[in-house]
Amino acid sequence: MTRTVIESKTKTVVIGFDEPFCVIGERINPTGRKKLAAELEAGDFSTVERDALEQVACGAMVLDVNSGAVFTNKMAEDARYADNNFVEPPLMRELILRIQAIVDVPLCIDSSVPGALEEGLRACEGRPLLNSVTGEEERLELVLPLVRKYNVPVVAISNDDTGISQDPDVRFAVAKKIVERAADHGIPAHDIVVDPLVMPVGAMGSAGQQVFALVRRLREELGVNTTCGASNISFGLPQRHGINAAFLPMAIGAGMTSAIMNPVRQVEMEAIRAANFLMNHDPNGGEWIRFAKVIEAVEGGMSFAEASAAASQATSGRRGGRRARG
Amino acid sequence: MTRTVIESKTKTVVIGFDEPFCVIGERINPTGRKKLAAELEAGDFSTVERDALEQVACGAMVLDVNSGAVFTNKMAEDARYADNNFVEPPLMRELILRIQAIVDVPLCIDSSVPGALEEGLRACEGRPLLNSVTGEEERLELVLPLVRKYNVPVVAISNDDTGISQDPDVRFAVAKKIVERAADHGIPAHDIVVDPLVMPVGAMGSAGQQVFALVRRLREELGVNTTCGASNISFGLPQRHGINAAFLPMAIGAGMTSAIMNPVRQVEMEAIRAANFLMNHDPNGGEWIRFAKVIEAVEGGMSFAEASAAASQATSGRRGGRRARG
Repeated sequence: MTRTVIESKTKTVVIGFDEPFCVIGERINPTGRKKLAAELEAGDFSTVERDALEQVACGAMVLDVNSGAVFTNKMAEDARYADNNFVEPPLMRELILRIQAIVDVPLCIDSSVPGALEEGLRACEGRPLLNSVTGEEERLELVLPLVRKYNVPVVAISNDDTGISQDPDVRFAVAKKIVERAADHGIPAHDIVVDPLVMPVGAMGSAGQQVFALVRRLREELGVNTTCGASNISFGLPQRHGINAAFLPMAIGAGMTSAIMNPVRQVEMEAIRAANFLMNHDPNGGEWIRFAKVIEAVEGGMSFAEASAAASQATSGRRGGRRARG
Repeated sequence: MTRTVIESKTKTVVIGFDEPFCVIGERINPTGRKKLAAELEAGDFSTVERDALEQVACGAMVLDVNSGAVFTNKMAEDARYADNNFVEPPLMRELILRIQAIVDVPLCIDSSVPGALEEGLRACEGRPLLNSVTGEEERLELVLPLVRKYNVPVVAISNDDTGISQDPDVRFAVAKKIVERAADHGIPAHDIVVDPLVMPVGAMGSAGQQVFALVRRLREELGVNTTCGASNISFGLPQRHGINAAFLPMAIGAGMTSAIMNPVRQVEMEAIRAANFLMNHDPNGGEWIRFAKVIEAVEGGMSFAEASAAASQATSGRRGGRRARG
């Protein structure tokens, strides 16, 4: 069976057909968060640290770390800051060091700047996931050598030099090309995690069906794990979380093995934990029963993040206790 | 494509691979409801009528009508009331007449008593669904002639004289036998809606996977529609609605086309409406957008039943208006 192994300093996470769904926390990303970008520019990492702790407590098994910040003030003083090749590599390094200092989960190094990817690879303990390569020729030839050199798995996004195709067969062909090109570089299929690209169902009625069919093909024909930006499916729609919470179990049922998403959301995490149970990836429902206590605490008035943190501390306490007795 | 056509006096509902998921409301059932059984014994149909209206407003497309009441007081006075063959036929008739008088949706005649099934068939306007035949020899030979005589579709439950098998291959074989036996009676496969039997995932970790695999096989190999008692999946577990709300989209993704369930439950109905959209069975998300307004009303403090009824009245009003202008 296909197993993509990623590691932090001491922890191993396996993305795989026979594993619980891998939740990759998306929040450490200044691209869409101006306030966070301004904090990073000022050297303030408190939001990043809080997001790291909160996402892990809520159930993120891996944290995505995106360094795509625009430093507008510095740019006004020094023209080099207009270049992401200048800004991102040291920022990625700093982000990773800060995050590794407080949580022990594998990281997903996320940048469009090859220099930032390599700086991230140097800074990471364990075996991170690299995010991402695409089918674009330039990107393939820049990223695959890094994947090979550092022996890490990589997210492969199904677009190429012609853009993102609306035709799922074209997106499958792009994924296949990336897997083949990776093989030329000596990279095995089990180290490629394909993102088949999720379109908004509000704009394209077949978007859900496309993803489910693509995931099945990617799994059966290419033998690869899959991931996606799950919340894209509900872009522009009212009551988005309801759409996301049905999409995730359906994608899991079709064979999707991970998603890059916001884990600080009860509805989506509840859907994933229930789907894990229904896929027979939660022996005796132990995880579900623990999670049910978190839902009860939320029903009692706590926020999901607070309730998750409390449950997570209780578990570490018990685990610590067991270790001490062992 | 397989289409199971059921009708009320004026409305047609199609259960089919290319149709929105068919929600069959389960609440009109005195078997597990002692208070309701006592009301029926006293000739009080007010709960039945309220349940009929409420379920339809919440999105039930078909109403299951189960006559399995035990009339304990009458039994003490008259020994004939200990026999369901005596109690159920007139009760089924009365239930159906009362329900047909206030809602115009197809009915599902649900009894273990053949006389009650036939009395229901006589009382029903349109083309009801008969619930149910099993693979038990006696049941096959009692129910299939009724199905043939009244030209109605039937729910086929995958157990036989040996009981309910834990082996999904055996349950598939039972379904196949029923479809073949029905063919001998001149009943086409598109008039058989198979219930593959849902086991509780808390007792059997493979229960979800079994259903998803069975639904795919039933659809691909026998070409039949499927149904289930959806809430069985979460029997005995905490936070059952979370399990149900993931199970339904996963079952729909696997090809399940209907369920007998409680439609007066926001979480499950939200999951089904989102799944319809993701299956491309909700053109332009019109149904989702209407349902989102119901969720907003619930967030504003209304009960789901109240909000659904208000939305349903508003829609009938608008529809009436359009008709008047047409």
